[in-house]
Amino acid sequence: MIKTASMPLIVTGSIGIDTIHTPRAKAEGILGGSCAYFAAAASFHVPVRILAAVGGDWPDAHRQVLQRFDNISLDGLETRPQSKTFAWGGRYFDNMNQRETLFTELGVLDEDLPPLPEHYRDSEYVFLANTHPANQTALAGQFPSRKLAVADTMDLWINIAQPELLQMLAGVDGLVLNDAEAQQLTEINNAVSAARKILDMGPTFVVVKKGEHGAVLVHRDGLATIPAYPSEHHQVVDPTGAGDAFAGGMMGHIAAVGMTDFASIQTALAWGTVTASFVIESFGLNRLTEISRRDIDERMREFQGLARVG
Amino acid sequence: MIKTASMPLIVTGSIGIDTIHTPRAKAEGILGGSCAYFAAAASFHVPVRILAAVGGDWPDAHRQVLQRFDNISLDGLETRPQSKTFAWGGRYFDNMNQRETLFTELGVLDEDLPPLPEHYRDSEYVFLANTHPANQTALAGQFPSRKLAVADTMDLWINIAQPELLQMLAGVDGLVLNDAEAQQLTEINNAVSAARKILDMGPTFVVVKKGEHGAVLVHRDGLATIPAYPSEHHQVVDPTGAGDAFAGGMMGHIAAVGMTDFASIQTALAWGTVTASFVIESFGLNRLTEISRRDIDERMREFQGLARVG
Repeated sequence: MIKTASMPLIVTGSIGIDTIHTPRAKAEGILGGSCAYFAAAASFHVPVRILAAVGGDWPDAHRQVLQRFDNISLDGLETRPQSKTFAWGGRYFDNMNQRETLFTELGVLDEDLPPLPEHYRDSEYVFLANTHPANQTALAGQFPSRKLAVADTMDLWINIAQPELLQMLAGVDGLVLNDAEAQQLTEINNAVSAARKILDMGPTFVVVKKGEHGAVLVHRDGLATIPAYPSEHHQVVDPTGAGDAFAGGMMGHIAAVGMTDFASIQTALAWGTVTASFVIESFGLNRLTEISRRDIDERMREFQGLARVG
Repeated sequence: MIKTASMPLIVTGSIGIDTIHTPRAKAEGILGGSCAYFAAAASFHVPVRILAAVGGDWPDAHRQVLQRFDNISLDGLETRPQSKTFAWGGRYFDNMNQRETLFTELGVLDEDLPPLPEHYRDSEYVFLANTHPANQTALAGQFPSRKLAVADTMDLWINIAQPELLQMLAGVDGLVLNDAEAQQLTEINNAVSAARKILDMGPTFVVVKKGEHGAVLVHRDGLATIPAYPSEHHQVVDPTGAGDAFAGGMMGHIAAVGMTDFASIQTALAWGTVTASFVIESFGLNRLTEISRRDIDERMREFQGLARVG
């Protein structure tokens, strides 16, 4: 496990109470949310700070899950006794690649972000997981030592908050989004060309996540493509959080090496891919609580063999 | 260009007269068909023999296109004055990944295969491009020096000739098919697991083609995954034949190195990917007539950089 004196990576986003139906099983009231998946994945690479809020209904068992990850700081996790935790329910269809949302209860996500703890202000690497783009913009400006700020987004904000989204894009270094969202934002039916158009909106790089089909990086200095880890049918238990874990592994690697150039981000795609490949093997964070950095390193070596080119 | 004294690779399949509509352009009566795309792509790697038939309506201009490829032997191309050439029309939708068939006129494809020229019987590498599986089985047995026989197939045969398809699968070394077809044949919604089930039907390996998302190789000795070359929107003129050209580049490499082990087939995936990436840049074989082996080698080096893992 990589340990450094500083705690350079911070993430803000949702901590959720998830209910998930898959064709083979069901999980109710488990720990989820973009912040939880991102932080757990990143914590295998570098210490990570969480800035998020939960309600009075947040189970202590969920806190204990996060506490099992040595490298996660919960100093920025605010409990609001009078509020409700963000809750989400979803059902996956047979192919595990598409899902429908059963319910969304915003709870604390409809309130302001917690104040940034003073000792978090020296964060150098900032990940703005999916939340309202106005909140993302507000937070991105609070880090005097910022080296890299990367945001995620979703179809909802493209639909209802496009001006704020465009403002956010002008103020971050990178954007991570899925292929359907890239198409929705740009009206271009090609991941590379869509990402290139998003570069014109401000970021230095865009990562288009394609789920089981891998990801594409379009950077002002270069282009990269990577397949997903080729998981088999019986290994895919629950795809929830894979995209957030991909971002966590990616940002974790970038923060660990302290390099933000194109080549380092390209390398980080592979760490994101490998870290995310464990997340889908269980509901919630269960699989990540079972593995160590050594398992991630081993799978990276395996993946480099599987995805060898020429 | 690789030249050897022997001509070890043979392909049988369709020579077509294609009419293609894309959202941006239209091409009428151009040279197409699985055999043409495969042979042109393979010819950059190794000499290739065509076994196919055309009708009296086959334009001399189409023969001239094939003759521009030094490494293609047309000795097995039979002209039947009283028959019609296979003709196909298709229209691509906006995303260039889906298409509808406008018309199919089987013509000579509804007749017997031409007899195998005696001097073709020493072929060592055999590609049975998409045609009726009974014809594929009949041909596969005619090569005493056969080192590797690989077949392609399509949804039509899965629907109307499944017993013959299963018989064919029991007699070949490899199968190449696209992801929708793999799912249709196995009823498994996962490319790797579907391919693994197809191994139980006979072949030593299965390559699942995923178009813009690359390909997966499932072999009794290993697993491999590769992304597609990340073409941009303006580069994708006509995806027709990309899958056949992929197979041509793959089989061409295997025949050129004369190795059929897992590692050689994995390497061949990259050559298939790179060769196919040129095909989609024009209608028909136009782009392939413009390039040389040097262009393919250069793009391979570029692709190895683009798809570097970790």
